[in-house]
Amino acid sequence: MSCIKISSLSVLICFLFLIQGNAQILEGAIAAPTNIRSDDCPCILSDLSVLFRVIAPDAAKVQVDLGKSYDMQKNENGIWTVTTDPQEAGFHYYSLMIDGFKVADPASESFYGTGRMSSAIDIPEAGVDFYSLKEVPHGDLRSKNYFSKATGTWRNINVYTPPNYDQEKNKKYPVLYIQHGGGEDERGWAIQGKANIILDNLIAAGKAVPMIVVIPNGNMTKPGTNVRGYSEAAMDAFRKELLENVMPFIEKSFRIKAGASNRALAGLSMGGGQAFYTGLRNTDTFANVGVFSTGLFGGISQVTEFDVEAAIPGILTNPQSFNTKIKTFYISVGEADQRIEATKKIVETFRSKGLKVEFASFPGGHEWQVWRKSLHDFAQRVFK
Amino acid sequence: MSCIKISSLSVLICFLFLIQGNAQILEGAIAAPTNIRSDDCPCILSDLSVLFRVIAPDAAKVQVDLGKSYDMQKNENGIWTVTTDPQEAGFHYYSLMIDGFKVADPASESFYGTGRMSSAIDIPEAGVDFYSLKEVPHGDLRSKNYFSKATGTWRNINVYTPPNYDQEKNKKYPVLYIQHGGGEDERGWAIQGKANIILDNLIAAGKAVPMIVVIPNGNMTKPGTNVRGYSEAAMDAFRKELLENVMPFIEKSFRIKAGASNRALAGLSMGGGQAFYTGLRNTDTFANVGVFSTGLFGGISQVTEFDVEAAIPGILTNPQSFNTKIKTFYISVGEADQRIEATKKIVETFRSKGLKVEFASFPGGHEWQVWRKSLHDFAQRVFK
Repeated sequence: MSCIKISSLSVLICFLFLIQGNAQILEGAIAAPTNIRSDDCPCILSDLSVLFRVIAPDAAKVQVDLGKSYDMQKNENGIWTVTTDPQEAGFHYYSLMIDGFKVADPASESFYGTGRMSSAIDIPEAGVDFYSLKEVPHGDLRSKNYFSKATGTWRNINVYTPPNYDQEKNKKYPVLYIQHGGGEDERGWAIQGKANIILDNLIAAGKAVPMIVVIPNGNMTKPGTNVRGYSEAAMDAFRKELLENVMPFIEKSFRIKAGASNRALAGLSMGGGQAFYTGLRNTDTFANVGVFSTGLFGGISQVTEFDVEAAIPGILTNPQSFNTKIKTFYISVGEADQRIEATKKIVETFRSKGLKVEFASFPGGHEWQVWRKSLHDFAQRVFK
Repeated sequence: MSCIKISSLSVLICFLFLIQGNAQILEGAIAAPTNIRSDDCPCILSDLSVLFRVIAPDAAKVQVDLGKSYDMQKNENGIWTVTTDPQEAGFHYYSLMIDGFKVADPASESFYGTGRMSSAIDIPEAGVDFYSLKEVPHGDLRSKNYFSKATGTWRNINVYTPPNYDQEKNKKYPVLYIQHGGGEDERGWAIQGKANIILDNLIAAGKAVPMIVVIPNGNMTKPGTNVRGYSEAAMDAFRKELLENVMPFIEKSFRIKAGASNRALAGLSMGGGQAFYTGLRNTDTFANVGVFSTGLFGGISQVTEFDVEAAIPGILTNPQSFNTKIKTFYISVGEADQRIEATKKIVETFRSKGLKVEFASFPGGHEWQVWRKSLHDFAQRVFK
């Protein structure tokens, strides 16, 4: 296989010389942007199917798993290939199975997700460039360390500061705290989510106000236990970490506007549950709450029944008290996500009781393309 | 295996229940700090040998390769283990070989090195804490993007700003540009190298002056070709990128002190070659040059003969012109690095001609522990 670089976006046109001996050119195929350096495989074909290749002559069985598992075929040179079904555009974690052992693909970049360093393939979506690097003013993505009294450890935190933060030396900014999902950490929104690029582009277009985006590590367990996820004890541990450790550190370190209307809390999946619990229980602190693709309302096996009035007292019985305090209460979900029915149902319940809630759905399942679009949408609705 | 967290450094004491059925406690064993989340393997024993574990019942052969290759042994439950020879302290890339296929270990974090996302194990060194996170003022590590006219692409760059950079709004700082080695990129000094933590600790102790550290991607090829590494054409491509793209971007974005005496250029291995070429050919721009573990002087197969006077005209014939312009010319190397003899020889040649050069060597081979120590040493010598 050989490739020619054709654009400033490092997209490569691949001329695929198939391994059976006859050279064959797959017109329009491109190397995935998630490939390592100049690797030309995985290769995305024009129908968004993906060609994977693994050189493993001594393996007896090689599969690629990106939600669905595909058996790869070996040729006489020990090179395994498979072309998948057409995929949804967007960012998908995937694994190789080498004789049954699940590993990252050395041909791709790895990302912290699914509780380990996982391969991923980022399939460009036609006509969608809101998360592409462009010639607009860029903010910084800053990695900082703070000491958490809750965990007794140093924790890394990523913070986006908007363009001209250094130059506008006395200007204060509203702040969005945004949480990753289970099996991810503070790298999720910074790397997979491209939060900085999304905000750069929105701010340049005048569609979002310049804001600081704080991306903490939301993995908290009930103190002294391993209880995590959607349990109320783990949610409460997150609330304490955010309010007592993260926020004081951020407000000391950056020029943040005061007041609930200048603060937003959002998150995806488990982080959506954290935003829901901590945001709606602390409306004096957060007047903007974004809940993306959460399983809190149901649709996943870990959550059987959710009593929303018990979780957030008054939300159904006294919705006006929330309507007056909350400026943006936003819920989104992927249209192919198993959480969609439970999500739509609770939105209907909220609305039937008179609670103001903004709802959006996007094509795709439980995946980063939906979350990028959710941030892109949510960021345009807040602080205005 | 089960572990107890004992300190704020996330070091875990491991009680190793061996897999043959009989529980066995390995006293003093610790989980490597590079392990994923709460994984307790790989486990470092008190003699710095390392126990690796892989659960791969269907694999026919499993090895771990960290310089030397070790065959792992499978028990009846399909769990493979091996305990290596005692290792040097420090950061070592390693791979698993699953039926001959080289992959990252899902039990460890992955790092961009050796031209791919590679596993690594970071073995603490007794009594050495200059790269440990401590309760001192911390600077930021900022990720920025700039457009390179040389490559025609957006490139990521990491920049350390010292503590109080935001608060001291008019203060200007000296700047150190520091380069990674071959097969690495701008993540090397930021993640593996822990440059930010090293500087935080040095500045807090008053041993280094507050400085900005710029960590570019130094992977440049001769334009229009794939020629890279130590070739003069690739070195020249780096020089142009640094002087014409990186430096103007940095000087526009940060508060940098003017003048060669306030600029340093350093690098490791291939990056040491880049620092040597670009630094010594541009002494009006850089008065401080650090060359760590470079193969430029010999000791590796790619470099057969190096004519230093041809590379840097006047360096042997008119050393005084360099002595007056250069404030710090520093060379370091690992004592077990195959490059050490060629490095010592050129230092002797320089000194015999009257060129001032500072030399240091550190225990270890061609590896990050030597480079962390080199930065720790070099940063104390410059800008004073």
